[in-house]
Amino acid sequence: MYKVNYRSKLLEEAVDQIASLPGVGRKSALRHALHLLKEPAANVEKFTSAIMNMRANIRYCPDCNMISDSGLCPVCSDSSRDRSTVCVVESLRDVLSIENTGQYHGLYHVLGGIISPMDGIGPDDLPIGALVERVGKGEIREVILALDTNMEGETTALYIYRQLIPSGVKVSAIARGVAFGDDLEYTDEFTLGKAILNRQLFSI
Amino acid sequence: MYKVNYRSKLLEEAVDQIASLPGVGRKSALRHALHLLKEPAANVEKFTSAIMNMRANIRYCPDCNMISDSGLCPVCSDSSRDRSTVCVVESLRDVLSIENTGQYHGLYHVLGGIISPMDGIGPDDLPIGALVERVGKGEIREVILALDTNMEGETTALYIYRQLIPSGVKVSAIARGVAFGDDLEYTDEFTLGKAILNRQLFSI
Repeated sequence: MYKVNYRSKLLEEAVDQIASLPGVGRKSALRHALHLLKEPAANVEKFTSAIMNMRANIRYCPDCNMISDSGLCPVCSDSSRDRSTVCVVESLRDVLSIENTGQYHGLYHVLGGIISPMDGIGPDDLPIGALVERVGKGEIREVILALDTNMEGETTALYIYRQLIPSGVKVSAIARGVAFGDDLEYTDEFTLGKAILNRQLFSI
Repeated sequence: MYKVNYRSKLLEEAVDQIASLPGVGRKSALRHALHLLKEPAANVEKFTSAIMNMRANIRYCPDCNMISDSGLCPVCSDSSRDRSTVCVVESLRDVLSIENTGQYHGLYHVLGGIISPMDGIGPDDLPIGALVERVGKGEIREVILALDTNMEGETTALYIYRQLIPSGVKVSAIARGVAFGDDLEYTDEFTLGKAILNRQLFSI
């Protein structure tokens, strides 16, 4: 891509590592590396130790597996939440997005990943057994699957559904349909088909 | 922004640090932090140590200040380059962009920053004295200023120009004009004005 090979192994290695972050290309990674080079050494030390410290010492909620430094997470410890509903999500980011809608008042179960044979992640790497155990305690009436609509998400949803069948708990999935602001003509046929099948009574 | 305060100080600190990278918002920073959390500890160790290692051990070309692990950089040590022309740029990224055009065959002088009183960076923090010294050796006939067109870039260019006056070296600046693919009607008046003043004989 470039005519000059800048031949700094130290820079190359830092750029390689930064470019391993999701959605960060080599050009942005180089920009970040040069930024860190210009920073005082103490700031770079703070940067790397915050990351190492997080990775080494992070704790998870014993109930829902959400990141939580001390015991139960803010959702599980909130007595006003509906304890009969559990929403299964891939990550904390999904929790924050759903919370942001203001439409959900139940609990969560954070998988922290998704079944992905390509990345070597199988069902046993995720806290699915803990979910089955949680449901087994009898308080939960409904499990809502809110996973991404891709192969990994569908596979994970199907696996969890099968594990939950013996418990008899109601299992639902978030609705698929045409997003607000999307043009029908540009919506893929699978989504549009689902949107027609799952049509709702019109109301204002 | 979010209804749940996820209250992990460890995660917060890592997100704060990652969000300090240029152009990285808090949402992307959270995504990166959660990615690093899912990675094996050894990978995170590799990530942070590559950055620390770079910051602690990077070396610069003694002539042009470009990043170079061992002595002269690949440009300065290339005997086929025109040693009578030096192009002054802010960073290695600019070197790579100019090299990419294939239109420049001289040497560089990498400032590694720009005069910016807001960030506490003055002329003495940049290798401008080294540039004057380099020009003083007599081999250089022209210094091309290739700095960004913003207040900091213009200030730095003017400062360097003044420092070079006593040497009598020719000082030029890269042309400002309408970029390929830009619409005239959406081009700002300053750029369009410069483009008219600096018009060139038409040729095919």
